[in-house]
Parts: sequence; C-alpha cells; structure tokens
Amino acid sequence: MTGVQQEGDDQSVSLYLLKQKMADFAKERNWDQFHSPRNLLLAMVGEVGELSEIFQWKGEVPKGLPDWKEDEKVHLGEELSDVLLYLVRLSDICGIDLGKAALRKVELNAIKYPASKNYGTNDDSTAEMCG
Amino acid sequence: MTGVQQEGDDQSVSLYLLKQKMADFAKERNWDQFHSPRNLLLAMVGEVGELSEIFQWKGEVPKGLPDWKEDEKVHLGEELSDVLLYLVRLSDICGIDLGKAALRKVELNAIKYPASKNYGTNDDSTAEMCG
Amino acid sequence: MTGVQQEGDDQSVSLYLLKQKMADFAKERNWDQFHSPRNLLLAMVGEVGELSEIFQWKGEVPKGLPDWKEDEKVHLGEELSDVLLYLVRLSDICGIDLGKAALRKVELNAIKYPASKNYGTNDDSTAEMCG
Amino acid sequence: MTGVQQEGDDQSVSLYLLKQKMADFAKERNWDQFHSPRNLLLAMVGEVGELSEIFQWKGEVPKGLPDWKEDEKVHLGEELSDVLLYLVRLSDICGIDLGKAALRKVELNAIKYPASKNYGTNDDSTAEMCG
Repeated sequence: MTGVQQEGDDQSVSLYLLKQKMADFAKERNWDQFHSPRNLLLAMVGEVGELSEIFQWKGEVPKGLPDWKEDEKVHLGEELSDVLLYLVRLSDICGIDLGKAALRKVELNAIKYPASKNYGTNDDSTAEMCG
Repeated sequence: MTGVQQEGDDQSVSLYLLKQKMADFAKERNWDQFHSPRNLLLAMVGEVGELSEIFQWKGEVPKGLPDWKEDEKVHLGEELSDVLLYLVRLSDICGIDLGKAALRKVELNAIKYPASKNYGTNDDSTAEMCG
Repeated sequence: MTGVQQEGDDQSVSLYLLKQKMADFAKERNWDQFHSPRNLLLAMVGEVGELSEIFQWKGEVPKGLPDWKEDEKVHLGEELSDVLLYLVRLSDICGIDLGKAALRKVELNAIKYPASKNYGTNDDSTAEMCG
Repeated sequence: MTGVQQEGDDQSVSLYLLKQKMADFAKERNWDQFHSPRNLLLAMVGEVGELSEIFQWKGEVPKGLPDWKEDEKVHLGEELSDVLLYLVRLSDICGIDLGKAALRKVELNAIKYPASKNYGTNDDSTAEMCG
C-alpha cells in the first residue's frame, strides 16, 4: 500500500506528541524567547537546505535508496526530522493545529483531483498532490 | 505547556496515518510514477516557497498571529500542510520511518543541548533545536 | 539612490564574467559531469538554507546591519555569493542569458506595477517587485 | 568554454546596474519601507520555490533543456531573474557589494579546490563549487 515497504513503522507517533515534546524542549532551555514565527520559518528553510544538500550531487535517485549506505540513510532521517520538528514548532507557535489542517488538506486535494479521473500521462498540471 | 493555547488539538493524527493517506492518494491517481525522491523534494521546496510568501512582507509577527484574519490563518494551515504532506511522502518513498526518526532526533537534541545548562542569553549557537 | 551607502561598489562585475569564471572553474576540475540542472538547483537550495541560517535567530534586522560584526558581514557576503554563483551556473547550464532575462523582468515589473500609482500603504499585493 | 552555447549573451549586465535598477524601482513606488533584510530574504525563498516548481515533476533534465518549449524557457528565465533580483536587492539592503563578494568567493573556492588536483570521480565531497 505504501511506496516502500516499512514493516516496522512506528504507527503511534502523532503530530500532537511531537508538538508537546518540542514545546517542553524549548521551555526547559528557556528558548521560547527565540521561537517567533519568522525565526522558526527561517530555521526550517535552513534545514530544507541541509536536506537538499544530501541529494544535490546524486542525479536521479531510485525509490527506497537501494544504493545508499546505512549511515547515509540515518543522516537523511535526521534531516527529514529537522524539517519536521521546526514545521511542527512553527505551526504550534502560529496557533495552527497541524494534524487537523493536514487531514483537511488531503480532503481538499481529493476534491481538486478526483480519483476517477484518468491521470497517468506525463502531465505536469495533474501530478500535484498539494497544488 | 505549548507555545499557543490550542485546546481543540486533534491528538490522533499520526505520521503513519498521513503516510498511508498519501500512498493511497497517489496510487488511486496513478501518480507513483511521478513520486521519485528528488521530484518530491523539489515539490516540497516549492511549498516552502509558498509558505514563505505568506510571511514575506509582514515584518516580525507575534506568536499566535493575533492580528491575522481567519482566512489568512486557514491559508497558512494549508501551506504548512502542503510542506508536511510532501515531507511525509518523501520520507515514505525514501524508506524512512519519519515518526521514529523524529523521536530519535529529539533525543539526540536533548543530549546535545542538556536542559540543565544555563541558556537564555541571546547566544545564536545555543538556540538551535535541530542543529 | 541605493538602499545603503556603498561608495566602493565594484561596478564592473557582470553576470557574464561570473558565468565565464564558473564555467572555467568547473571545466578545470572535471566537474561538468555533476552540473546538471537539478543538481545545481538543489545545490542552490542548499546555499539558500545556509543564508537563512545566518538570519534565523536574529528577529528583525535593520537595513545596513549596523550591529553586525565585520566577520559576520564577511560570512553573509560569502553565503549571498554562493547563492549567486549557483544561480549563474544553473542559468548557464539551462541556456538562459541571465543578464538579459533580468533586464527584461525589471521591465515587465515596471509595467505590472506602474510608478505613477499610489502605493505606500501596507498592502501586501502591491509590495512585490517580482510577482 | 561555457556549459551551453549562448552566442548572444548580453555581456554588459552588471550586478551594479541591477542594484541601481532595483533601488530606483523601490524608491519610485515607495517600497523601501517593505524592503527589510528578512522580508527580502523570505521573498527570495518564495521565488526559489517558484523556480523549483518548474523542475519538480520533470525527473532529470539534460543540459540546455533541448525538449523544453520556448514559453517554458521564457518562464524559467523569469523565475531565475526573480531569484536574482531579490538576491541583488537583499545584498544592497545589507550593505554588501555582491559583485566584489562573488569574485572573492570564486578565489576562495579556487584555493579550497585546486585545479591541479585530480577530481572527476563521483566523490560528493569534491564536487562542490561553493562549499
């Protein structure tokens, strides 16, 4: 059902849990003072940059990253996480329920791109999940 | 406990759920063919751009966005979601368990930045959650 | 006439010169093989991330950066340059004359946003140079 | 000598000229008030997103974009220009001479990656122009 087999997926990690962890983390270190919306946004852009650097010289990369070493995958997981953690924190600081918003967006996308329509050609305009 | 009061947070939305929804969504539309790692990464960068555009001319923005209109907040929730959905999909396609990786990264951050240390001054080097 | 006084500006540095330098640089190191459009684009995104990191915890920053130390400004100049150099190289590899395209875009912007119109209010829709 | 043949390159477009044009443009529209460093940075990130969207579903793209339609190339030129124009404006507002900084960075890169060294293998660590 998923793009890549991941038998051991931890199914319990919610956005709410991560939000709480990030809030506690910041509070315990007196970092709330730094966590303004635009500071967090720029921090997230910084992490998107680090994520991009992992892929920058690789040319096209096949699904599942079959040729990547284990430590490269661990590094990738860390950079993906960094983007996620700042995204979660940014949403919290903006007062947005990210989980709820994401479910709603999936529903909007389903209306925008009906499953019954015949896609599948290389048509840029239709290959968007999140237009 | 959190940065901004959000009583009604939907606590049940897991990364696993979103991963499944995105995988089903792509499969039903025959979009798996487009969802290579670097395609998804660039799509995510595109959404980060749209998110940034919301904040670009606003100057500093206070926590909780007290002066934003409701439709602006809805729009913000959509762009935050778009980034999240592509991030979740990218992780899946790369074979990374994003939830597990994020929990691990929070633990690594806690080791890197011990809570007992006295932060709180305007020291850039310490105000990083996701260094 | 400019935003910030810069008496010593080197007025001779053209995009064409930088393009030539980058092309020679790559050729001398046998790096043309790595310089595909999407590799260069992701490399540029990586540099945008590094540029963002400089600003991420600073809150709003006044024009001219009056409180920044000299080494911070030097670092900033390096990150701005990294973005520029990859942008120039990406344009070249795509066969785009960036200088010509930029002059054309300024003209298009002038048509889109006539100078005679009364802007100046905090109207997001009009404060775009590059819509 | 360059990656892609561009006989008609406009060799006269300098960063200084673009800086002046952007400064005049902003002044004539009373937009200096919006052009703070972080506003411009986020605007640039927005344009990087639009640039990425052009490439997002294309998979690997060959040099020179042989299969792209003319209007796609024109659009690409516009997005490349948007990134450039905000980058030039951001540099100006920060008091950085971008042309001078870029020349200096090329020299630093030449020291960091000597041309005499044997590169050319698929070694990520060496294929960086702007480390």
